[in-house]
Amino acid sequence: MNEFDLIAQFFQRPSVFDASLIQGIGDDCAIVQPPQGQQLLVSTDTLVAGRHFPLQTDPYSIGWKAAAVNLSDIAAMGGTAHSLLLAISLPSADADFLQPLSAGLFDLCQQHGVQLIGGDTTRSAVLSLTVTALGFAPNGQAILRSGAQVGDDVIVTGTIGDAAYALHYPHSVLQSRLDRPQPRLHFAQAARGLLHSMLDISDGLTQDLGHILRASGVGAQVDVSRIPHHALLAQLPRAERLALMLQGGDDYELCFSCAPKHWPQLCAIAAETGTPLTRIGHIVAQPLGVQLFEQQQPIQCAQTGFLHF
Amino acid sequence: MNEFDLIAQFFQRPSVFDASLIQGIGDDCAIVQPPQGQQLLVSTDTLVAGRHFPLQTDPYSIGWKAAAVNLSDIAAMGGTAHSLLLAISLPSADADFLQPLSAGLFDLCQQHGVQLIGGDTTRSAVLSLTVTALGFAPNGQAILRSGAQVGDDVIVTGTIGDAAYALHYPHSVLQSRLDRPQPRLHFAQAARGLLHSMLDISDGLTQDLGHILRASGVGAQVDVSRIPHHALLAQLPRAERLALMLQGGDDYELCFSCAPKHWPQLCAIAAETGTPLTRIGHIVAQPLGVQLFEQQQPIQCAQTGFLHF
Repeated sequence: MNEFDLIAQFFQRPSVFDASLIQGIGDDCAIVQPPQGQQLLVSTDTLVAGRHFPLQTDPYSIGWKAAAVNLSDIAAMGGTAHSLLLAISLPSADADFLQPLSAGLFDLCQQHGVQLIGGDTTRSAVLSLTVTALGFAPNGQAILRSGAQVGDDVIVTGTIGDAAYALHYPHSVLQSRLDRPQPRLHFAQAARGLLHSMLDISDGLTQDLGHILRASGVGAQVDVSRIPHHALLAQLPRAERLALMLQGGDDYELCFSCAPKHWPQLCAIAAETGTPLTRIGHIVAQPLGVQLFEQQQPIQCAQTGFLHF
Repeated sequence: MNEFDLIAQFFQRPSVFDASLIQGIGDDCAIVQPPQGQQLLVSTDTLVAGRHFPLQTDPYSIGWKAAAVNLSDIAAMGGTAHSLLLAISLPSADADFLQPLSAGLFDLCQQHGVQLIGGDTTRSAVLSLTVTALGFAPNGQAILRSGAQVGDDVIVTGTIGDAAYALHYPHSVLQSRLDRPQPRLHFAQAARGLLHSMLDISDGLTQDLGHILRASGVGAQVDVSRIPHHALLAQLPRAERLALMLQGGDDYELCFSCAPKHWPQLCAIAAETGTPLTRIGHIVAQPLGVQLFEQQQPIQCAQTGFLHF
């Protein structure tokens, strides 16, 4: 099967053209028109087999996750997801593998009204997928990492450490949290006007929160006993639980900061969008960086998340 | 060296913010604002070591080529290049390799006023680079593959088959045509208003021209004796020369169609931008597809270009 047949068979679904999509798959470029008054958000992330997902991961989940981690970057800006481009490198063009992979990718995209508008298919000894996600946000209203303000609450969505648990203990009920993360697009878009800073947790809570703090020139005090976690993590020894929650990553939950007065409004948005929210700490002027506490007592914890090299 | 140090050291040059670049590297997404009245062009292409460039290719050329093949897609739409995102997968974080690679990428970008605005760095056994290129074109004025009209001239820039020659005969003067292609951005942007259809030649002239013909529902008659080629190709046996020119690919020259009356204007633009132009044939209603001629006699030639699977 040649590249063109392959693309046509599994990845070229009819484009739905509207005011924002002028040209989809099939030309040298796609053509996108951001709506009046909106800016374009763009992000790219690669998943490499055996590194970003276990080698035995089912193809449906691989396709899903490649889309999810990139749409999560759009969510992390408070944006509306628009479209994806997929560059896939494959050892061989195997229909039994590509059919469920494309189904996983398209199923997630469909949930969020996202179209595949371009891509590239290449042969390589190692399976890898690089997705570029495009989204929109009203001019000047995307949520950056650099906007955290002293006195803000530090808040996370969902439960933290689930994906890391699944990586260490395969076949639990948390497996889908590793394989099929759900980008928090609905919540992020609805809450955008209330938030000062935000990112998604991909490399571990401590490390990722550290990015917000560095970009904002502030510190944070976090109470580890308030970090929301699944019941399976509650059964682990304390040190292991902390490691999974603080350094685990791959949950694609959101971590953001927000003035405390907005908490009731956030809770209303959380209820509408089915998004668990937990206040885990607050932003301070000094010291810089993350300070961890457990029942008011400072604790030490390795600060590194998942480092790629 | 961890991922963040690596990115900072080699790829994070200070962004030059203007009305079109709101946020560069360093957040979950970059933020781009297309100028008033312009649409966004976006394309993504992967280069895999040993497949899209020889394993012994110097790192400067690898960085250059990864940017060039993607900027060439912007040229193929008649667009203005704006920015790149780079997702790079590497066996190891080796400064001696990454320094020249990033230099090659940035040198080409600088020539075209293009900034690196985002990316991702991952470890993989196989070196590969996926670049996403962003550009702009005035609303409705990007040149698609589907616009060819009966009676149009079929025109190519530069010489054809050079890269394929270099792949087969290393260390000739044509080596740089394989390693460091030059996207035809200046010509394409200046000529945009005159052209009916266009693409860049990446997979071979016959195959790529075939994409225009299929998208436009027309045929083309091409005189192979008019296809411009370097003196080194002229010395080859006829069959080999034809194979390199018709099926070679990787030249990243432009192939476009245009009403014959515009030829003088095109020549003026060619002169201004230093772009050789050659009329190699014309668009016909029937038969569909590419018909090859040599001194008025029809010839047969394998129609396939470079197939990735």
